[in-house]
Amino acid sequence: MLVKDIGEFRLIEMLSAVLDNSETIRDVRRDDAVFRLQLSIGDDAAVWKGPAGTRVMTSDAMVEGVHFDLDHIGWADLGWKAMVVNLSDIAAMGCMPLYSTVTLGLRADLSVAGLVDMYQGMSKACQLYGGSIVGGDVVRSPTFFIAVTLTGSANPDNNWEDDAARLLTRDAALVGDVVAITGTLGCSTGGLRMNLGGLSFDGDVEAHLRKAHQRPTPRVMDGMALVRQGVVAAIDISDGLVDDLNKLCEASGVGARLVSDLLPVDVFLRRAYPDDWLTLALTGGEDYELLFASNKDTMGQITSTLDVPVTVIGEFVDKSLGVTVVDECGSEIAIRGSGWDHFAQHE
Amino acid sequence: MLVKDIGEFRLIEMLSAVLDNSETIRDVRRDDAVFRLQLSIGDDAAVWKGPAGTRVMTSDAMVEGVHFDLDHIGWADLGWKAMVVNLSDIAAMGCMPLYSTVTLGLRADLSVAGLVDMYQGMSKACQLYGGSIVGGDVVRSPTFFIAVTLTGSANPDNNWEDDAARLLTRDAALVGDVVAITGTLGCSTGGLRMNLGGLSFDGDVEAHLRKAHQRPTPRVMDGMALVRQGVVAAIDISDGLVDDLNKLCEASGVGARLVSDLLPVDVFLRRAYPDDWLTLALTGGEDYELLFASNKDTMGQITSTLDVPVTVIGEFVDKSLGVTVVDECGSEIAIRGSGWDHFAQHE
Repeated sequence: MLVKDIGEFRLIEMLSAVLDNSETIRDVRRDDAVFRLQLSIGDDAAVWKGPAGTRVMTSDAMVEGVHFDLDHIGWADLGWKAMVVNLSDIAAMGCMPLYSTVTLGLRADLSVAGLVDMYQGMSKACQLYGGSIVGGDVVRSPTFFIAVTLTGSANPDNNWEDDAARLLTRDAALVGDVVAITGTLGCSTGGLRMNLGGLSFDGDVEAHLRKAHQRPTPRVMDGMALVRQGVVAAIDISDGLVDDLNKLCEASGVGARLVSDLLPVDVFLRRAYPDDWLTLALTGGEDYELLFASNKDTMGQITSTLDVPVTVIGEFVDKSLGVTVVDECGSEIAIRGSGWDHFAQHE
Repeated sequence: MLVKDIGEFRLIEMLSAVLDNSETIRDVRRDDAVFRLQLSIGDDAAVWKGPAGTRVMTSDAMVEGVHFDLDHIGWADLGWKAMVVNLSDIAAMGCMPLYSTVTLGLRADLSVAGLVDMYQGMSKACQLYGGSIVGGDVVRSPTFFIAVTLTGSANPDNNWEDDAARLLTRDAALVGDVVAITGTLGCSTGGLRMNLGGLSFDGDVEAHLRKAHQRPTPRVMDGMALVRQGVVAAIDISDGLVDDLNKLCEASGVGARLVSDLLPVDVFLRRAYPDDWLTLALTGGEDYELLFASNKDTMGQITSTLDVPVTVIGEFVDKSLGVTVVDECGSEIAIRGSGWDHFAQHE
């Protein structure tokens, strides 16, 4: 069987099974210091408890021709995104970014000035949202790639007993919780489609979509604020709302019902794509907003506390009801067409 | 200017300068917890002090066609090496491996069974030498690559004041220290040359060289033992003895004089390459032995404490004398020919 014959997620399952079956030491004991692994492959980041609290670690890579094309993205934006995809994973755990290593696989004919710009983009993202590049590796490679690893720390006032509740994980959404999201949806994909198709819109719309795609915002402070408000379940939107909601539901053992009219879709996206904005909002990737579950009663407090707008877009329901999207009349909207095909290209 | 116009090390300098000039937060303060960066790009691993002690983090990638060829290495051996190059960096800091993420860039036509074997090789290395694979990323890539990041911990009984001395770093060798090394030299390159050239030797020799190349041993326990013995300066041999000694000397601001007769070269390498063994021992890469500096007076204690054989092979001298190799008569041996050409291919 070849890689192309199975999906990314099935492959990850098979590789994870190797580790589960091995005698790899998950809990490392050394004198009084116990490093206890809490969560491994399967959430936005791995989590362990050490003597000074809970630490997380995530890795995300970008490959030329698969995740980016130098004809369509500037060097500084590329660096920004390579760091932001990792910052967003730490945000989705409700943690503070700490340290990062950057591994570069470089073609010999890449521009050195471009790489310096790229590093400046990475560095800028760290200045604004946290994390420090402390090392890495530079190797020759026929294909240009950027592999970033980022560590983070949960709130240090957590104590050993209760800090399982002081993280955002994928497996903690409950039936009856509301489905909520930060920011707006679909603009990143709208910007990508504009770039690839050479589309042009009026100045404000174009600038907004371009920025959404090339300079996404990781919701780091918001993730930490959600933890302080008692939220326990979240994921970041990297593969699209419906896709990532499915992952959250699967991990939590619940279903979800979204109401399309509630989706936060900004006016720029509606103007640029009057026929398609709903599909883009439901299935477009790389928004890097936080999708989370919350008790109904605390949503008011959350909405007033976070700096970013927060919108309730549905509710978590019994697993048997699956994940559905309904319009204002309660009729189910079919989203398995263009949405899912789009993801097939990702794998 | 293109990547091919400058060497790996000059490029790393330029990228590091971006970080130095930026306002990236190197010391992260949060409530009572200060994470203070000690060492960044330029040693075997980045180092920082957090509330519970000193932590290190390293990344090393292997790229198909550059670092390995599936026609010449088995899947399990490939996984083993991808993990061991990182374990060896942690060993060279005198630290204990903790947690690792593995990012795989995969061609669609790679074998899934092969990848499972590869993961078993990685897992096996972790079982024997420490570290746990806790996460990572799987992406499509036209070029197969494996990018590993590994964290580690310095001795937890270090306290805040003195633990700078409880790590092995590249910048701490002193004039008058002896140059010492664990294990033997040159067999990994001897094994590589045998594989690539289709050479055959008698059974014992062949098995020994193959193992040296495909299943190198990271000196994790030995690195920690060196710290306990008061050693402060070390590097692991990844690019060859002379090359890595030059890096150690440059970081420490010293020179070194090696005596060729003292080099630990095993009988298998001498039998396989009767004319070349000295060149292989001086310049061959991927031995993953620890090269370290020690006070003369403590070498006896070190030799009797470590499980692996340790050999004094020269001494550190004034920087103005450079790095030289002399034969038993004190005549300098020219090593800039084949040795340095070999490294040019690496970059």
